[in-house]
Amino acid sequence: MKLKTGAEYMESLKKLNPKIYYKGQRIKDVTRHPATAPHVRSAAMTYALASDEEYRDLATATSHLTGHTISRFTHVHQNVEDLIKKIKLLRVLGQKTGTCFQRCVGLDGINATYSVAYEIDEKFGTDYFERFKKWLTYIQDENLMVVGAMTDPKGDRSKGPADQPDPDQYVHAVEHRKDGVVIRGAKLHMTGAVNSHEILLMPTAAMDERSKDYAIVGALPVDAPGVTMIFGRQASDDRRDRKERIDTGKPSFGAVGGEAVIAFEDVFIPSDRIFMDGETEFTGPLVYRFAAHHRANYGACKTGLMDVLTGAVTYLSQVQGTTKGSHVRDKITEMIHLCETLYSSSIACSAEGCPTPSGAYMVDTMLANVCKQNVTRFHFEVARLAVDLAGGFLATLPSQYDLESEDVGHLVKKYFSGVEGIPTEHRMKIARLIEAMTGGTALVESMHGAGSPQAQRIMIFREGDLEKKIKLAKVLMGIPIKEKASQKKPKKS
Amino acid sequence: MKLKTGAEYMESLKKLNPKIYYKGQRIKDVTRHPATAPHVRSAAMTYALASDEEYRDLATATSHLTGHTISRFTHVHQNVEDLIKKIKLLRVLGQKTGTCFQRCVGLDGINATYSVAYEIDEKFGTDYFERFKKWLTYIQDENLMVVGAMTDPKGDRSKGPADQPDPDQYVHAVEHRKDGVVIRGAKLHMTGAVNSHEILLMPTAAMDERSKDYAIVGALPVDAPGVTMIFGRQASDDRRDRKERIDTGKPSFGAVGGEAVIAFEDVFIPSDRIFMDGETEFTGPLVYRFAAHHRANYGACKTGLMDVLTGAVTYLSQVQGTTKGSHVRDKITEMIHLCETLYSSSIACSAEGCPTPSGAYMVDTMLANVCKQNVTRFHFEVARLAVDLAGGFLATLPSQYDLESEDVGHLVKKYFSGVEGIPTEHRMKIARLIEAMTGGTALVESMHGAGSPQAQRIMIFREGDLEKKIKLAKVLMGIPIKEKASQKKPKKS
Amino acid sequence: MKLKTGAEYMESLKKLNPKIYYKGQRIKDVTRHPATAPHVRSAAMTYALASDEEYRDLATATSHLTGHTISRFTHVHQNVEDLIKKIKLLRVLGQKTGTCFQRCVGLDGINATYSVAYEIDEKFGTDYFERFKKWLTYIQDENLMVVGAMTDPKGDRSKGPADQPDPDQYVHAVEHRKDGVVIRGAKLHMTGAVNSHEILLMPTAAMDERSKDYAIVGALPVDAPGVTMIFGRQASDDRRDRKERIDTGKPSFGAVGGEAVIAFEDVFIPSDRIFMDGETEFTGPLVYRFAAHHRANYGACKTGLMDVLTGAVTYLSQVQGTTKGSHVRDKITEMIHLCETLYSSSIACSAEGCPTPSGAYMVDTMLANVCKQNVTRFHFEVARLAVDLAGGFLATLPSQYDLESEDVGHLVKKYFSGVEGIPTEHRMKIARLIEAMTGGTALVESMHGAGSPQAQRIMIFREGDLEKKIKLAKVLMGIPIKEKASQKKPKKS
Amino acid sequence: MKLKTGAEYMESLKKLNPKIYYKGQRIKDVTRHPATAPHVRSAAMTYALASDEEYRDLATATSHLTGHTISRFTHVHQNVEDLIKKIKLLRVLGQKTGTCFQRCVGLDGINATYSVAYEIDEKFGTDYFERFKKWLTYIQDENLMVVGAMTDPKGDRSKGPADQPDPDQYVHAVEHRKDGVVIRGAKLHMTGAVNSHEILLMPTAAMDERSKDYAIVGALPVDAPGVTMIFGRQASDDRRDRKERIDTGKPSFGAVGGEAVIAFEDVFIPSDRIFMDGETEFTGPLVYRFAAHHRANYGACKTGLMDVLTGAVTYLSQVQGTTKGSHVRDKITEMIHLCETLYSSSIACSAEGCPTPSGAYMVDTMLANVCKQNVTRFHFEVARLAVDLAGGFLATLPSQYDLESEDVGHLVKKYFSGVEGIPTEHRMKIARLIEAMTGGTALVESMHGAGSPQAQRIMIFREGDLEKKIKLAKVLMGIPIKEKASQKKPKKS
Repeated sequence: MKLKTGAEYMESLKKLNPKIYYKGQRIKDVTRHPATAPHVRSAAMTYALASDEEYRDLATATSHLTGHTISRFTHVHQNVEDLIKKIKLLRVLGQKTGTCFQRCVGLDGINATYSVAYEIDEKFGTDYFERFKKWLTYIQDENLMVVGAMTDPKGDRSKGPADQPDPDQYVHAVEHRKDGVVIRGAKLHMTGAVNSHEILLMPTAAMDERSKDYAIVGALPVDAPGVTMIFGRQASDDRRDRKERIDTGKPSFGAVGGEAVIAFEDVFIPSDRIFMDGETEFTGPLVYRFAAHHRANYGACKTGLMDVLTGAVTYLSQVQGTTKGSHVRDKITEMIHLCETLYSSSIACSAEGCPTPSGAYMVDTMLANVCKQNVTRFHFEVARLAVDLAGGFLATLPSQYDLESEDVGHLVKKYFSGVEGIPTEHRMKIARLIEAMTGGTALVESMHGAGSPQAQRIMIFREGDLEKKIKLAKVLMGIPIKEKASQKKPKKS
Repeated sequence: MKLKTGAEYMESLKKLNPKIYYKGQRIKDVTRHPATAPHVRSAAMTYALASDEEYRDLATATSHLTGHTISRFTHVHQNVEDLIKKIKLLRVLGQKTGTCFQRCVGLDGINATYSVAYEIDEKFGTDYFERFKKWLTYIQDENLMVVGAMTDPKGDRSKGPADQPDPDQYVHAVEHRKDGVVIRGAKLHMTGAVNSHEILLMPTAAMDERSKDYAIVGALPVDAPGVTMIFGRQASDDRRDRKERIDTGKPSFGAVGGEAVIAFEDVFIPSDRIFMDGETEFTGPLVYRFAAHHRANYGACKTGLMDVLTGAVTYLSQVQGTTKGSHVRDKITEMIHLCETLYSSSIACSAEGCPTPSGAYMVDTMLANVCKQNVTRFHFEVARLAVDLAGGFLATLPSQYDLESEDVGHLVKKYFSGVEGIPTEHRMKIARLIEAMTGGTALVESMHGAGSPQAQRIMIFREGDLEKKIKLAKVLMGIPIKEKASQKKPKKS
Repeated sequence: MKLKTGAEYMESLKKLNPKIYYKGQRIKDVTRHPATAPHVRSAAMTYALASDEEYRDLATATSHLTGHTISRFTHVHQNVEDLIKKIKLLRVLGQKTGTCFQRCVGLDGINATYSVAYEIDEKFGTDYFERFKKWLTYIQDENLMVVGAMTDPKGDRSKGPADQPDPDQYVHAVEHRKDGVVIRGAKLHMTGAVNSHEILLMPTAAMDERSKDYAIVGALPVDAPGVTMIFGRQASDDRRDRKERIDTGKPSFGAVGGEAVIAFEDVFIPSDRIFMDGETEFTGPLVYRFAAHHRANYGACKTGLMDVLTGAVTYLSQVQGTTKGSHVRDKITEMIHLCETLYSSSIACSAEGCPTPSGAYMVDTMLANVCKQNVTRFHFEVARLAVDLAGGFLATLPSQYDLESEDVGHLVKKYFSGVEGIPTEHRMKIARLIEAMTGGTALVESMHGAGSPQAQRIMIFREGDLEKKIKLAKVLMGIPIKEKASQKKPKKS
Repeated sequence: MKLKTGAEYMESLKKLNPKIYYKGQRIKDVTRHPATAPHVRSAAMTYALASDEEYRDLATATSHLTGHTISRFTHVHQNVEDLIKKIKLLRVLGQKTGTCFQRCVGLDGINATYSVAYEIDEKFGTDYFERFKKWLTYIQDENLMVVGAMTDPKGDRSKGPADQPDPDQYVHAVEHRKDGVVIRGAKLHMTGAVNSHEILLMPTAAMDERSKDYAIVGALPVDAPGVTMIFGRQASDDRRDRKERIDTGKPSFGAVGGEAVIAFEDVFIPSDRIFMDGETEFTGPLVYRFAAHHRANYGACKTGLMDVLTGAVTYLSQVQGTTKGSHVRDKITEMIHLCETLYSSSIACSAEGCPTPSGAYMVDTMLANVCKQNVTRFHFEVARLAVDLAGGFLATLPSQYDLESEDVGHLVKKYFSGVEGIPTEHRMKIARLIEAMTGGTALVESMHGAGSPQAQRIMIFREGDLEKKIKLAKVLMGIPIKEKASQKKPKKS
């Protein structure tokens, strides 16, 4: 674990030279640019905790490959305990940053690829697993940050990859050379991309036989030739660009994951970094394992965020003198209740985890899908309750420039004060925190990160084992199990 | 109706000289400043519709005071038809601006004050009603925009006005002169304040006998000496400040109502513009009537907004090729369903309206409260569904600078395209519209405007006529009506 | 209006001789049989109110055919006021019976058939409208109760009428004679059938050209030869069969509408009672108008029931000493809120009603569908809240036999008492009322009566005018209206 | 484990002679009486599974007291694995009986008393723990069924035990003899009471110092002198009394737990069966541990029931030919989703379990409360969805007498048929199963069993650690932790 602290991590980023654009301009140093620096600091927290006595047990693990102490974010889960510790680590990080710390995407990509590479080799006699272990040992020892790159643009969604008018709407191999593969396409919504060291490229969905060139998995550095990133806009991002400490709402850390487009314009990946190449039947399992791990995480990191939000509105009710209102207590109770319901599924899908053939542990996929599905509902409801409790001034509060103005500062201080003894500035800061955590970007990410709601519903239905459930009902009423409706076996005429 | 068009309205604003601050700077011309101009244009739409053949019947009325044709926004409702037409007008305006057009606050203040002034005079022999009619005739004939100013800062909410450490946390009379009253305090969240002509000042809650000085109603121009406004920040307001046409999301019109703080530093109001002064028992009815009218409106203007949002996501599903998904249709159905449920209550509380002693019509207060209560739930849910349908790129979309960039513009165009034949720019524009209408400020306003959710619940419980309902149940089971639990009449020992 | 009182109505039923079965036995006198008598009494209330000074204005109308005073349940709505009065009448009846009073089904059938018969004649030069007016005059003058018979069994729902293995799964003409039509089939869930005088037969869905024989509308007496009814079971119906006054929960009135199967085994309907015969294109409008009227009603009668339920739990909280609990008040508030939300849509769809070519008034169909859709959600939620507030003894309460037992009566009295001064029996009665109104049958009816939830969703989507909404969004962002995606108009190659 | 099979269990019940009343009559043999026999059979399943190869590992455990193989329902949880196995066992039993199998109440009572008796002894030097272990060894070796008796009548709920007009509204010691204690009072809603062997008596709430006589824990046989039980009514219980095989809905097994009142009229408990006597400070922990264990269980047994219900409606959709409807699949998906969300919390609170000083393992109390709170919402929603999918005939279906009638049987068979090849009887049976599982009693139990919803909310708020959460928010905004509002420390004047 070469990079040991947040500072070392940040230093390491300066040595890279990725091509990143934001608002039409190239970003030179992601650790300093006001748009990206807060995201860098969030990710740095994953490094910092590993050196923190209190959290070391959660934040590190022992590599099953080398026996070295490594960051848990580079670890292949070896048992249920690993899965549960990861969940607890994510909640702590959510509490400490109030946002996405980005590194679990790579972790989930590593775990999915590890187990699938093993199975491809088992079936086809390839050597992807050895290649991957070599790359992973490098990642673990260096303690690098990896962006798991999955989501393609998809173009016209009524058509699959092979039927798109523009074949580049899904990343694909455009040339196979002796020493590697050349790819083209793009990945959208790439969390942590601009401050990662490496990209782990994966297909976005199960591919059919016609889409062999789209069944590609590989790793490459973020500054490989032909890679361009465009950093997305976020709600109220200009406040951050201007370093408005209060109005930003969360001055040290980013809103969500600092997502970016990664465009690949004929990018070469050498063979020893290719972990799947055309084995379409394994694209489904790869995507599904990645998704399941990632969905499990959402009940952990987001509950950390909700802990912050719950604390923020509780504090605000103290400042405003409303702590005794029964409806205030009831709404805070509901926020906690929804938060812990989410956490339940994260813990449960981990506790019910089981090993894949490679030895890597998978979460229970049903419960992981259930977890994410609830996130897409409850995070909005928790935000709604927070907005209710905070009050209308969330939308009408004057700026910190007004607070500090000679002309009107006295009016802001006077008329936005609460109970005696707490400075108006504190009330304003907490209001801005709540504003930042409940509006726009923050919630969109909860909706669509790790797969849009409908993706989970499809899996929940598919894994619901309805045949077994029908049998349970029939047994209770003494209906024969084997009966068949004509609907199923239509008579021939 | 002197001001006949949007342009005339804007011209009239230039003649005023209110003291307005935004981000620490004084705003010189609200019709041009990028922060306020979009709000001015929204309000201007209320003027424009009055001259529009298609909408004139909704947008104008005949004054019962003068017989003149006036803007409906200055009209005292004379019957159920007036109430219903107002609802339809508000929905149309919501559809055309996609935001708050601000003018109903003054309208509701006018209607509440009109009926209450009449009743005060009936009881106390005062002449508030005549004073008010005179002022109102002026407003109607000039067609002025009035900001209804009700919400006080409230300081420590565990204490009433008279018990605040700082007596100015509620607006109050600090001096009674022969020719008028001097007031001090502030009003928060003042919708449309910066582009109104007049302020109609009202108390924020029912006042008790100890708070006579707080029972003050009066009218004053926005640029009266001692009046200072501070314009609030809104989500992503800097985009507007920079006139980013696409990224603003709604370039012509504002987010919500352009709320501002109005501070009154010893402001004088002459006697003929005072409509209540110390009659505390009438503060409750005034506030309640204002609130009921205002709550009724939310099922109208917000449904206009939801119409826009529903159209936006439907269009986006066409662009993205997902119109045939059954879950897409189902979510659009749900958006419409929730929207029309809200509209039901606005129509119903109007259809069930009835006259006050002054002749002015009131909405059904139960149904008006129910209306607003649902807004605080359904607007969030409609936004959540819109975010679901729109997709994750709502949170990660590059800026218009990137779209137009020589370096990366081709990548943005390529990878954010949808079905063939629709420019990427259109998809981006609609995404920004949805972003602007679902994030932050827009929803906070739906939660707290016209009273926070708990305010409605208190009224719903109070007006639920539980005694009658208990009787219904008892009759069905043959239980005597008159029975009394000892709980009610404890025995004396 | 020959039948003037509940007693006269009951007397009139004795003169009929319908073939009715219940639990395998024939019922001889529906006014006395314990299974049907409570339903007869509910329907009798519709007669009683017409003679009640307090409600006469709601319960009667002036026939536009004869000028006679008639029951509103036989009236063709002539204006918005008629529609609104009907809604208010239904709520009062729901409050007074705590259940379905059955007669609106016939009323809605009358209104739908009236307007559609007119339009068929306009198009085809038939004389259905005259026939119908003649029959309707008879119904009005005699003041008869009519069961609107629409829902067919449908057999295999993946197939339409013409494709069913058994053609009788939808009612159809099996023979056309000179003097009339012979029909076969059955209608399910027929509310009030066993205590009606007449059946108004209507098709269950829009029929295509292949299903001409299924496009049949006609009227016949309930005891026409070949008509057999089977009265359905209800939750806890045996308690009623044994006349257990307390445990029945609502001893005087029925659970829901006393639904029955009506089987037609080659039943003859004379020509002058046939109002549609093969005009398939009018089946859609007929069904839709009936459905819209009926859906509008659900926000009226069910709110009457919810008033009772709200009263019941409020009373119970008094008996149990829990009135001061903030969560108790909050849940009661929520019950009222949901109830009045439903009522809003009933009032609104009436206030927005408009005339058909025949002059008969239709409700606004969008708002009527929204109304019913909410009933399928809110009635369950109101019941859930009632169960929450009532307490667990709802499920474990001993019987009235135990209350009256020499052996254990003292224990029941002692341990089910509440606050001092209220007899245990009162608490038990109210618990049984709540049990009867929240369990099983009562809620199923709210779900499926007037069409299952999905039926409303299809209409809400269809009537949502998405083209207009898309246009609103485009205008706000300056996107051309006319643009066409290739998806819509694929280029030919 | 003396009783090894369901048959042996039933045989053992015949040797007891409890005083049980139902509908005013004494029940002589609970294993044969139609009201109680189905409940006996449900409980017997807990015995049967212990001998079933497939489930033995779940259904049995090794006693930490004796090393014997015992029923898991008499086991003190020794580790997380025990807690999780219990959860899985409960879900299986729910699936196999479709109802409550009653035995977890005693199990939870055993676990709560075990750990608390240990702690009382630690503090006061008493010997309750030894007494309890002796009694528990007897229960384990004999494999007896224990009813955990907690819920008191409570009378006037605005008053505590010591202030009730009738002191017997809470069970209390009325006499302390040398050899034991005489108690008086009653316990309501006693699940499985009539077919248990032993009663484990516990206080219903935390008692204060004034209520020492109410702080009593002890064990006694169900047929101890002075014990009388009254078996409660259930929805449609008469169908069962008449042994209507189809219409009962679940002919072999009961609705919920067969709850009964247990009245104690001066009942003597010998000293060696007393496990708490006046140590009021331990009543709180006892109640809370019992409640937490019990709340954890609801996400297990109820999910078993939901599995049955989901299977039932899925089967019905096959019979009705609606399996391909997208809304049908979506509603089934939602049923599964809600079910697995509940299960998540049961698993999670077990996985996060930890030892008490006695060594007995406790579940995580926050997550256990969250679990039960969701049951009070989701079970109703799952039932609502099932009713939606099943269709309206759930409320109007003729009886099995009609199905078998010579007169109308052919009509029932014809008109309630579905797709070809499935007998109408099967459709009717499944409809009755759904009716039995969604109406009335079944849902009331989910609401109030293991504590009414508000009880969980109080605990969720209390355990939410708001101080920590406030700190998280403050740290993110750089607000000092130690700051104190004057609200908290009012200045003295």
